[in-house]
Amino acid sequence: MKMSQGVEWSIHCCSLLAVLPEGRTLRLEKIAEFYDLPVPYLRKHFQALSRAGLVKTTSGPRGGYRLAKDGSKISLLDIYQALEGEEPAFRCNEIRRQGPTTCGQKLYPVACNIATSMWKAEAAWKNELSKVSINDVVAEASPQISEERKAASRAWLEAALASD
Amino acid sequence: MKMSQGVEWSIHCCSLLAVLPEGRTLRLEKIAEFYDLPVPYLRKHFQALSRAGLVKTTSGPRGGYRLAKDGSKISLLDIYQALEGEEPAFRCNEIRRQGPTTCGQKLYPVACNIATSMWKAEAAWKNELSKVSINDVVAEASPQISEERKAASRAWLEAALASD
Repeated sequence: MKMSQGVEWSIHCCSLLAVLPEGRTLRLEKIAEFYDLPVPYLRKHFQALSRAGLVKTTSGPRGGYRLAKDGSKISLLDIYQALEGEEPAFRCNEIRRQGPTTCGQKLYPVACNIATSMWKAEAAWKNELSKVSINDVVAEASPQISEERKAASRAWLEAALASD
Repeated sequence: MKMSQGVEWSIHCCSLLAVLPEGRTLRLEKIAEFYDLPVPYLRKHFQALSRAGLVKTTSGPRGGYRLAKDGSKISLLDIYQALEGEEPAFRCNEIRRQGPTTCGQKLYPVACNIATSMWKAEAAWKNELSKVSINDVVAEASPQISEERKAASRAWLEAALASD
């Protein structure tokens, strides 16, 4: 089972948008440049993030993307679900109802307990993801990033914003 | 993100093997018949379960599959990993190291905190799956299954074993 790369990309990109100066935006091409990602695929993911109400785009010559709400209100689960949807990873096909010993539909009043066990595990996973916000990601990353990299990123960002 | 159907099939099939009489086995074709599953795909999954040491096959005219150990010692996580491997669903591609502001490799001494947050959530999911054994699945299912279905399954199983 593999999560799509779009989830990884989107979390990184949202963490970049979380550190933009108040009221400023970043064009998609610049976001892609910062992480060396292909623009067309990233555009598709940003459309999904936009539909989910996580990012906003502004039009005009200085137009670009910004977070649609405070980074403390955007969780890793929000980003995952924007990209991958809300359907569980485990899909119950009710195979207990198949085969030669199956009985009438009314004899299966509750969900298959295999499915409920699998979904309980997914609920624990989702609960962990819902506890981590994009602002948490930025705060946790900060002590991991060297001063050299921070200075380079600040300089890049100033130039990227100025060129909008 | 979607789990392969093989996980669902394998959990159901292991729960059938868990109720076989002591010392008896069931041929793959019979296991497939019980759930109306395609034999070739199921065979592939049983090969994976066998490699992981979860089921055993006996040769000879009465040969077939049985659990390789007590059902209390086979968890949903064991079955998941037998089929899907142990690689995490979230794969970190280190995109923090990409782009124009990247620094030397030595400046990234610890794992990206986005990856560690995603993996922490997967650990919570795995922990839940590890707590549910195949014997738990059987015990939890029992009160959900009608007496009519239980009788039909017992009769089918007696005939299936006898025909080995």
